[in-house]
Amino acid sequence: MSDNTHPLDPIFHPRATAIIGVSSRENGRTSFLGSLMEQDYHQRHGLYPVNPKITEVAGLKAYPSLLDCPDPVDHVISQIPAHAVSEMVDQAIQKGVRSIHFFTAGFSETGDAERAAMEREIVGKAKAAGIRLIGPNCMGLYVPGEGLAFMGGFPKEPGNVFLLSQSGANAGDVVGGLSRRGVRFSKAVSYGNGADLDAQDFLDYAANDPQTEVVTAYIEGVKNGRAVFEALKRCAAVKPTIILKGGLSAAGARAANSHTGSLAGSVDVFEALCRQTGAMRAANMDELHDMVVALTTELKTVRGRGVALVGGGGGFAVLSADAIAEEGLDTPPLPEDAQEQLREFIPVAGTSVRNPVDTNMMGGPDGRRRMRDTLTIVANAEPIDLIFATVGGWGGRGPSPTGDDDDATPSGTTGDADPAMQGSSGSPAERAREAAGDLGALQGRVGVPFVAVQRDRGPSSSDASRAFLEEAYFQGVAVFPTVSRAARTVGRLLEWRGRRAGLPEIL
Amino acid sequence: MSDNTHPLDPIFHPRATAIIGVSSRENGRTSFLGSLMEQDYHQRHGLYPVNPKITEVAGLKAYPSLLDCPDPVDHVISQIPAHAVSEMVDQAIQKGVRSIHFFTAGFSETGDAERAAMEREIVGKAKAAGIRLIGPNCMGLYVPGEGLAFMGGFPKEPGNVFLLSQSGANAGDVVGGLSRRGVRFSKAVSYGNGADLDAQDFLDYAANDPQTEVVTAYIEGVKNGRAVFEALKRCAAVKPTIILKGGLSAAGARAANSHTGSLAGSVDVFEALCRQTGAMRAANMDELHDMVVALTTELKTVRGRGVALVGGGGGFAVLSADAIAEEGLDTPPLPEDAQEQLREFIPVAGTSVRNPVDTNMMGGPDGRRRMRDTLTIVANAEPIDLIFATVGGWGGRGPSPTGDDDDATPSGTTGDADPAMQGSSGSPAERAREAAGDLGALQGRVGVPFVAVQRDRGPSSSDASRAFLEEAYFQGVAVFPTVSRAARTVGRLLEWRGRRAGLPEIL
Repeated sequence: MSDNTHPLDPIFHPRATAIIGVSSRENGRTSFLGSLMEQDYHQRHGLYPVNPKITEVAGLKAYPSLLDCPDPVDHVISQIPAHAVSEMVDQAIQKGVRSIHFFTAGFSETGDAERAAMEREIVGKAKAAGIRLIGPNCMGLYVPGEGLAFMGGFPKEPGNVFLLSQSGANAGDVVGGLSRRGVRFSKAVSYGNGADLDAQDFLDYAANDPQTEVVTAYIEGVKNGRAVFEALKRCAAVKPTIILKGGLSAAGARAANSHTGSLAGSVDVFEALCRQTGAMRAANMDELHDMVVALTTELKTVRGRGVALVGGGGGFAVLSADAIAEEGLDTPPLPEDAQEQLREFIPVAGTSVRNPVDTNMMGGPDGRRRMRDTLTIVANAEPIDLIFATVGGWGGRGPSPTGDDDDATPSGTTGDADPAMQGSSGSPAERAREAAGDLGALQGRVGVPFVAVQRDRGPSSSDASRAFLEEAYFQGVAVFPTVSRAARTVGRLLEWRGRRAGLPEIL
Repeated sequence: MSDNTHPLDPIFHPRATAIIGVSSRENGRTSFLGSLMEQDYHQRHGLYPVNPKITEVAGLKAYPSLLDCPDPVDHVISQIPAHAVSEMVDQAIQKGVRSIHFFTAGFSETGDAERAAMEREIVGKAKAAGIRLIGPNCMGLYVPGEGLAFMGGFPKEPGNVFLLSQSGANAGDVVGGLSRRGVRFSKAVSYGNGADLDAQDFLDYAANDPQTEVVTAYIEGVKNGRAVFEALKRCAAVKPTIILKGGLSAAGARAANSHTGSLAGSVDVFEALCRQTGAMRAANMDELHDMVVALTTELKTVRGRGVALVGGGGGFAVLSADAIAEEGLDTPPLPEDAQEQLREFIPVAGTSVRNPVDTNMMGGPDGRRRMRDTLTIVANAEPIDLIFATVGGWGGRGPSPTGDDDDATPSGTTGDADPAMQGSSGSPAERAREAAGDLGALQGRVGVPFVAVQRDRGPSSSDASRAFLEEAYFQGVAVFPTVSRAARTVGRLLEWRGRRAGLPEIL
């Protein structure tokens, strides 16, 4: 933490946490208690389960009430019903608690006037006593650096992405889905109804958080439009900020109203908000994930629309070229001298060195060298701004004579079933990791970003795929599940960069 | 097989197959030999590896030449280089072979005039002798009923979908990808350059094949436009026929020209072709997969745009409603009486029974009953034409008090982290299978199609996800990876049905 701490800093760094309403049967990953223990929160800080009916749970001493917990209790997670909350807040005030996260639902989001009034009363009381509230109706905090988490299975290592989300399920999808793509988080917060702390507060915190480099948000509605606009503008001016707005359709708005009590906003208004603030708009959850991957890898440096597509086989290359064109990028033919150089690697070359480049790069140390040479030649070609490299088939699938067999007579080229970019030896996972390392090293050398498009053809190759993905992301290479999503993301990134003219350069 | 057999029937049912140019090191799934043996072809028919340098491979006797193989040899797979093919064809004529599949590449697709002439000469010679050719530059046949396969890992059970594909890699993607979604194939053929047997021949065969109910094709170019038009028209008149055309963009057309020597065609021309013949156009590979799933499950009976979205949690429901609207479908509010009935299941209901319906259906026998009751009420509501049911979380993830715990005080509703649609007991895979069975039984009873949208949150639940998917598809329930793809598919299906006015009803 830097010297000039943000007012919300204590909320993201609680020295002790009490969970009110813990069940004796709460276990592992399906509870807040289990999620915090999985992150070793209890080994670093105080962790106090509260329930008058039990004395112990999961090896931890349980306390009859919040007032019985040891001092200090900085943070409270409330999983008691709405009608019991008011009394608990009184105890929290007495205890000197700094923040309460209400998992508890059943407040303003129900649309019931009485329950909305109850929410207002609780917020007023807590704020008057200097307690900040997260929620109600939300999952709360994920701070890997402190061992806070709201679901099981989240990575323990902190990263550089900050997430704010009105929805707990969507927060879980973002953290879970992006973690599997290699991304790590500085902090994530699911804040539900936003009765006290709201989008503008978290945006302001993220903008100033030294551990955060990229900010992303899922928002359904805002109570204070001007405050959100200003906070978003400040945040997007200094860090790439990606927003997904839920409830842009009539049916979605109805659902958002049921969910967090949010009111509708139109696509146009939201689009204008992004345009004016310099934020990026994600049209759906996949786009949000893809943009975060792009903005946390070398892909963020991409400057033009010229894609070289390498590997993947004939029919795949055809559909990929179509998909790239569909998203407004090009697959320009390589210049004649680059084609000449490539022909030395490709036996019966025909025109498959033009771009897409359909090389056979599998098998043996030769394969690794051919891969490096091919990518270097392609990267240096004038019209190429980035390279899509098809990877996969780590287990080896499909007939693919490689031409190094004494008995067999190789069939010229190998048809179009060849997995590209295989490493030279070891298990599929080792080969995958090696190939990812090669791509990372090469990307650093050639000066144009790579995108690895991972064609995972079945469960058998999933270990290798995960190994590839982890290593590639670690090396700063963006990995995408399809050419189409990669191309769309690049298109959006270039469009966003164009729109930022006049704003400070942040990439 | 029926009495009036099609002229191409012998090609899909060879009594014996020779593979020319087999290596002594060919193994398992990465070779034609291994793929055929995996399917037990050699236990049902003659399988003869040919290579003068070896005497045995994979436990099978190898023969020095085609002429040395036992009689009959109906089918030949050629994996020798292009320059050696002519002599082999002479031997095939002498041997009385009926069909040759040329994996061998290096013919007209290279753009080289000499190699194109060589292709013409071979085709002419073979056809004059009554031999039909598949290829060159392709993967050939997958006929599970006969034990023919061109890649390892393909299902052994036959099904009702026929695939023709100019690309071997794309044929592999279709068979592999759709197999994982439960689909099974009557036959699949990758035919590459189509020098002899071409799209029109396979479409004609598929139209008449009694084992085939749905036809799908990946096509890059056609030599005889009129013949393809007529064959497509005949096929689409009697069976749902889904076409994906590669090379519709300029860059894609360039790649297609390199790949199969195909010439470009525009989107408009292709769209018009589909419109005039009654075929369905798939815009990309995902759409092709999705449409095959839709047309081989009860989803094919869908008649309107009113979607009920059940389960999945608040934020997910909001984005889902947006995605459904984006694809031109509706999520209409349920009528008041249906909402009344649903309120009995949903504790602090608020408006989450309107549609999307955000029920908590997990845990215990109660959960199964609640699920059935909820879906029955929703299905019977007037504006509902189909139901999207969110499934997943089989391992149980995220805090989710269920309200049946004596110690804990449940928090009213459960926030939005609940996995819906969990079965009652057993392992995650058993629960998943049970839930799929329930959905299938219920779909049969209520008379509107279900779509299960599978939210697989991580590798831990993949066994259960697979179990769910298999059982659901077996029961006639379409499973989709995202709401967006499901909605798009339904939109396309309705549009296609509308366009078929005047053509015979085939669904």
